[in-house]
Amino acid sequence: MAQFDHVSVKKKANVYFDGKCVSHTVMFPNGTRCTVGVIFPSTLTFNTGSPELMEINCGSCRVRLAGEESWRSYAAGEKFTVPGNSSFEIETIEMVDYVCHFE
Amino acid sequence: MAQFDHVSVKKKANVYFDGKCVSHTVMFPNGTRCTVGVIFPSTLTFNTGSPELMEINCGSCRVRLAGEESWRSYAAGEKFTVPGNSSFEIETIEMVDYVCHFE
Repeated sequence: MAQFDHVSVKKKANVYFDGKCVSHTVMFPNGTRCTVGVIFPSTLTFNTGSPELMEINCGSCRVRLAGEESWRSYAAGEKFTVPGNSSFEIETIEMVDYVCHFE
Repeated sequence: MAQFDHVSVKKKANVYFDGKCVSHTVMFPNGTRCTVGVIFPSTLTFNTGSPELMEINCGSCRVRLAGEESWRSYAAGEKFTVPGNSSFEIETIEMVDYVCHFE
């Protein structure tokens, strides 16, 4: 599925880490939301409020969840989950295009 | 209006000019579309296919349309139009958050 239908989209972008991460917020009819965005090559730490499901559309990255020793690699078509009220480090090797679902 | 309702949005971002411009495509029920995006500080030349209406949500820029001598300044809340099959130069002074409507 290349697009979301019957949704609302915020006009204003979310820009984090001096532009290394740019996203737009999408709201679904059932009240849930996601962001569609990109992360440029960098190593960043994101904090979570709600639990997150990150889907990688394009690019490649390595991720380490809070409290874990090891990094795991993710590429196009792969996804990972992050607990709420936690954090993860992401090393973006090739620009990542993603969808991040919030529970 | 801070958001678009009852629309479709493409999951994959449009990334141009080595990441200086990042946008997502929004499709309206009547078949028209727009992009919501940002332009980081830079001077870029955009070519148009369809005529475009550019709304500046945040930031500031100077714009020169193809064939014009002078640059005009635009800030948050302002807009400008560009003919189809033409081009414009945009000097982004402070990161621009925009909505670009295609006719």
